[in-house]
Amino acid sequence: MRTAVVTVGKEILTGRTVNTNLRTIALKLKSIGIDVNRSYVIDDLKKEFKTILDFMTEDLIIFTGGLGPTVDDITRETVINYYGVETYMDQDVLDKIKYYFDRAEVEMKDTNNKQALFPKDSIKLDNDLGTAPGVYFKVGKQTIILLPGPPHEMIPVLNQAIDIIKDELDINLISRGYKLVGTGESSMENNLKGFYGVHPKVNVAPYANVGEIKYIFTSNDTDALDRCMKDFFNKFNEFIYGGLEDTLEGVVIELLRQQNKLISVAESCTGGMLASQLVNVPGSSNAFQEGLVVYSNEAKMKYLDVQEETLAKHGAVSPECVYEMAEHLYEKTASDITVSISGIAGPGGGTEDKPVGLVYFAITHKGNTTVYRKVFNGDRQMIRYRAVIFALNQVRMELLNDESHSPK
Amino acid sequence: MRTAVVTVGKEILTGRTVNTNLRTIALKLKSIGIDVNRSYVIDDLKKEFKTILDFMTEDLIIFTGGLGPTVDDITRETVINYYGVETYMDQDVLDKIKYYFDRAEVEMKDTNNKQALFPKDSIKLDNDLGTAPGVYFKVGKQTIILLPGPPHEMIPVLNQAIDIIKDELDINLISRGYKLVGTGESSMENNLKGFYGVHPKVNVAPYANVGEIKYIFTSNDTDALDRCMKDFFNKFNEFIYGGLEDTLEGVVIELLRQQNKLISVAESCTGGMLASQLVNVPGSSNAFQEGLVVYSNEAKMKYLDVQEETLAKHGAVSPECVYEMAEHLYEKTASDITVSISGIAGPGGGTEDKPVGLVYFAITHKGNTTVYRKVFNGDRQMIRYRAVIFALNQVRMELLNDESHSPK
Repeated sequence: MRTAVVTVGKEILTGRTVNTNLRTIALKLKSIGIDVNRSYVIDDLKKEFKTILDFMTEDLIIFTGGLGPTVDDITRETVINYYGVETYMDQDVLDKIKYYFDRAEVEMKDTNNKQALFPKDSIKLDNDLGTAPGVYFKVGKQTIILLPGPPHEMIPVLNQAIDIIKDELDINLISRGYKLVGTGESSMENNLKGFYGVHPKVNVAPYANVGEIKYIFTSNDTDALDRCMKDFFNKFNEFIYGGLEDTLEGVVIELLRQQNKLISVAESCTGGMLASQLVNVPGSSNAFQEGLVVYSNEAKMKYLDVQEETLAKHGAVSPECVYEMAEHLYEKTASDITVSISGIAGPGGGTEDKPVGLVYFAITHKGNTTVYRKVFNGDRQMIRYRAVIFALNQVRMELLNDESHSPK
Repeated sequence: MRTAVVTVGKEILTGRTVNTNLRTIALKLKSIGIDVNRSYVIDDLKKEFKTILDFMTEDLIIFTGGLGPTVDDITRETVINYYGVETYMDQDVLDKIKYYFDRAEVEMKDTNNKQALFPKDSIKLDNDLGTAPGVYFKVGKQTIILLPGPPHEMIPVLNQAIDIIKDELDINLISRGYKLVGTGESSMENNLKGFYGVHPKVNVAPYANVGEIKYIFTSNDTDALDRCMKDFFNKFNEFIYGGLEDTLEGVVIELLRQQNKLISVAESCTGGMLASQLVNVPGSSNAFQEGLVVYSNEAKMKYLDVQEETLAKHGAVSPECVYEMAEHLYEKTASDITVSISGIAGPGGGTEDKPVGLVYFAITHKGNTTVYRKVFNGDRQMIRYRAVIFALNQVRMELLNDESHSPK
């Protein structure tokens, strides 16, 4: 089965509104195993509808937008008339629209009548949050669904359509996934050569974000899916930090909680971003102790007793500096694990020895301090964000390697 | 001129990602007076490209996505080959990709080479944030533009393409704008009734983001544009914090620099997000002194001498607590201005008296401390973000009101 989603309306084409309806519809269809194969955004012009309707050959076509009462709302009559099916005006809908207007003490205009137009053999999709009901009808082997445009109206109407599709069809595709950090898309793709061929019954798709990659596995064969994911897990275990619903900071906070540990962080170039990510996890107060944004040398000395000599000799962006930052924070806070970050986020401040993007990290855990050095690409914000992800992942690895506290 | 935007990639069709690129491209084109007439989202399959390329007749066709190194990234070679133009491999791009990988200390794979493919008569659009450069080329009267998919890479590449289009079409529309904070779109629209009619030669368009609104003014008549913007400025002066290229945090840092002042911040619920926003401004080290993430009561007492009695009697989310936080930070750091934030970001922790979204702020400046109370809507992340914007804006107002230091 091939599926198309058509979003109607100038507000998407002018950039005034982001097309979130496509996402909502795609996710809902995916949940019952249906892929969207193509999507269109068209202007609300009769000839646009004709062009697109002539072109489309999909089995399932979903329109969203243009069902309202204004002169621009032409989706309903244009699509229904295009297919040349018999129609009727639904009296219940007319009554409902009238009631809706009476309640709001607004006079009902004739243009509102058109919202009651339906193909004779169609299913009415109720819209309790607006005056424009949805429509579900068939023309030959094609299924046509018309949904309202405003998201809060669209969703309940879509849900009714999904229930009907579910009844009519019988597919049960399963979709699961992993989130990975510490590896890049191209290096993964290289390592996956040959993998796809071993698992022909499973669709494996990567989705790269800044600093992390999601892999989504889809199949209608549970055993094949399990085998494929197990195989993938064994291959890339070191990079996998969780499932699709997990976040890296959430996993770190959860590990800290399981191990009954407290974390404190000292940040220079990331300037509070690491603390902020950790605090964004609900209930992080059980695990997050303190954060110090020690951007200036003075603050590094004042709060973390970084030696003036260290700063003079090695600079603030040095293994020596982050070492002292993490170690002294560990001593001062009595946290179980401390992290320090100092780097050059740019755009200025880089030298040949210490280029923009260079970031040093130190982690003190169980009395031992480890220093890391990385060079990140990107602009200031990106370098800082990548540094935060790297730090979070190193903390995760530290905690995972602590066998004595490993979760069951 | 007719324009089409084609977004390539499964992640949009599966609903994993919202198509924000369409919005960004549409807004940019609009700013130079070009409308998007239709938009497509297609799967990364060769035959999909062929079908859509055969169908499209637009004068300007913009593709976004699928320029990367993986096997799924087929946009570049598929589109270029479709048009049957002569091609070459760009040595500079190859070198740059190699350098990019060397810097990140990752081995360069052969699959990355394809990112250097260009039509012979094309313009290279640099991509400093990724390995895939964009392409601008002409086939007969059609203009084809290929842009990378990840938004942070796409935007700078798009800007180069826009400059070329402007040059080629000799477009002399001028587009300027203001950024506003501390007001909402619907209240603005109410206040703007009548305004549009007075300035018929100027297109005025609002673009709302979380916590701020952009107003973009476009016209080919400089005088009309100036008059309209002056009129707008006089009406909404209090909310306008800068032009389109400004950021609220950038304006705050700039004011601090002009007034030769240092800022320090103490954050509870925002957990470092305010500090991180300030540090994101290049060169913020001249103005940003210290940041303390005092999420726990212990940290509030330890670093800021918040009285145990205050916490016991009024709680950490109280005017009394933020007052002590800001005032003590002011004393301890000798900063010129200090800010404190404490609130309930949720989802748990709300009560009838102190609901989720309640945030207290204090600002100490020139020895005086002012306390603010706000209740924000949204989820945990949104509440925290809105709190940061509110705090930044209050700091901006404080500094602007300091006549003795007002900029020339």
